[in-house]
Amino acid sequence: MKKFMNDPANFVKEMIEGIYLANPDKLKCVPEYNILYRADMPKDKVLIMQGSGSGHEPAHIMCVGKGFLDAACPGNVFAAPPMDYVLECTKILKNDKGVLHLINNYQGDRMAWDMAKEMAEAEGIKIGVVIIDDDVSVNNSTYTVGRRGVAGNFFIIKAVGAAAEKGASLDELVELGKKVNGVTRSMGIALTSCIPPAKGSPIFDIGDDEMEVGVGIHGEPGRRREKIKSANEIVTEMFDAVYGDLPHEKGERVAVMVNGLGGTPISELYLLYGEVAKKCQEKGLVIAKNYVGNYCTSLEMAGFSLTLVKLDKELEGLLNDPAEIPIRVF
Amino acid sequence: MKKFMNDPANFVKEMIEGIYLANPDKLKCVPEYNILYRADMPKDKVLIMQGSGSGHEPAHIMCVGKGFLDAACPGNVFAAPPMDYVLECTKILKNDKGVLHLINNYQGDRMAWDMAKEMAEAEGIKIGVVIIDDDVSVNNSTYTVGRRGVAGNFFIIKAVGAAAEKGASLDELVELGKKVNGVTRSMGIALTSCIPPAKGSPIFDIGDDEMEVGVGIHGEPGRRREKIKSANEIVTEMFDAVYGDLPHEKGERVAVMVNGLGGTPISELYLLYGEVAKKCQEKGLVIAKNYVGNYCTSLEMAGFSLTLVKLDKELEGLLNDPAEIPIRVF
Repeated sequence: MKKFMNDPANFVKEMIEGIYLANPDKLKCVPEYNILYRADMPKDKVLIMQGSGSGHEPAHIMCVGKGFLDAACPGNVFAAPPMDYVLECTKILKNDKGVLHLINNYQGDRMAWDMAKEMAEAEGIKIGVVIIDDDVSVNNSTYTVGRRGVAGNFFIIKAVGAAAEKGASLDELVELGKKVNGVTRSMGIALTSCIPPAKGSPIFDIGDDEMEVGVGIHGEPGRRREKIKSANEIVTEMFDAVYGDLPHEKGERVAVMVNGLGGTPISELYLLYGEVAKKCQEKGLVIAKNYVGNYCTSLEMAGFSLTLVKLDKELEGLLNDPAEIPIRVF
Repeated sequence: MKKFMNDPANFVKEMIEGIYLANPDKLKCVPEYNILYRADMPKDKVLIMQGSGSGHEPAHIMCVGKGFLDAACPGNVFAAPPMDYVLECTKILKNDKGVLHLINNYQGDRMAWDMAKEMAEAEGIKIGVVIIDDDVSVNNSTYTVGRRGVAGNFFIIKAVGAAAEKGASLDELVELGKKVNGVTRSMGIALTSCIPPAKGSPIFDIGDDEMEVGVGIHGEPGRRREKIKSANEIVTEMFDAVYGDLPHEKGERVAVMVNGLGGTPISELYLLYGEVAKKCQEKGLVIAKNYVGNYCTSLEMAGFSLTLVKLDKELEGLLNDPAEIPIRVF
């Protein structure tokens, strides 16, 4: 295992400390619960938090700031945050307007957040919930009933983050989050596996000439394993999968994300984007916003995911609103 | 070789096309010479260009925009741009104020840019030159007489880019570039090799438990090969190397960059940054600006480089000035 780390047991803590030390004026830190939150926490708006496992950085622990997440409380690498992490983070955000929980659809996350929600509500905190399940590759999966939540979560976060800054109510944000999730579709593909620090061995094995089509961000199996193909052939399958999962019409405005899974260089991501842009043009889609880079990763996995989002005027406006997060992903 | 690509011979062209298609309003493209340049090219300032090889993205082909580079013309992967690429790019930038050539110190680059400069000057174009050689790891190297130019080039580009927007003359920019290069020190370390698309095999071999200390961005040998150590031990050696190469004093303001070489996840880069921040504090250095992410890479190589820059008021101000480049690295 080749990683820059000290004791594998401290990997996440030391990463979070590093993020904090890089942003001491912007963030506050509660190390025992893996919590980072805004130093300039507003008092007059709904506050928004995400958890998920670590290992997907910059998602989401690096995405705390104005117009985005107000706090994040990740679990260990590829593990849901324990219930008390979610509860403690929710309590930090306690306010009159309410707290919005954004949850990727994995059973471990659902359980921890359900319990924390119940306990927080018992303490008088108003909670709203949006479940994210943008991955079209499979229904049900190793850790999931239904579809998985993957890189498309950035669009839900960005939309509700911007709307909350403008004063949207908790109920309005829940509706908005569901709406954006409903028009967001993703699929991933892996060329290599990855090694969680504490595990010390790959999360799956894959041949030197193979790829996993529809891979999950924790290495969950996708649609099938097959021999590696050309970039253009791969884009064709990925595009057809996400495009075909919702009705579209000519002239429709969309957002496109080509998201690296951690070990794929940005040169390859732009090469892929070029082919995606041509596919969109063929279908008469207008790419109003594009995002090419590492957003939601799987440690050092080589691979990428493609996300397609149908835009309306409201959503396009929210994506264009300013956001101030420590690392400039949006 | 596991890469998202089509014909390896078209890798760079297709990447550049992708960058262009992602920024059709901001960039113009001359595919036959690998040139991207600003669509909003100003007429009233010195214009700035970089070349270098491809494979180091986002450096520099993804860094063309206001306050940064006005154009870039990379060669093939890990190859200097041919003389005619540099000449054609320089001719696009022809203007009354002059053109600034930023050149990383490799013999292939020096030769191509020297020839192109001579030919451009014969056509009446005023040229200034800044040579970048921030890598402290070795003197002379596989492709270099003297020190190599690596990730520290971002600070030179940012400084002259901002100053040019404010109206600095060609002579002033050459002086500024030399000054920033003189206070910028870097060193890199690799855990893995990488595979150029057209070569199809690793640029060097390295054992499963080894690291190359002081590696070059084309895989050039560093100071030594040794068994992999803990992150903190590695930071200690890297920090001592860059810190010890220039005189420092307590209370000095610095910029720090922890730059990923392409295959190392950002989680590890922040873990490393946390330790670098502590080292700076021990020495009494004040980190005024920090940069953690992939800036100057070696395809999918796992590794990082550390850059330390001594700031004065002028340089800190220039680093804080706005820049508008397609991908938000600065």
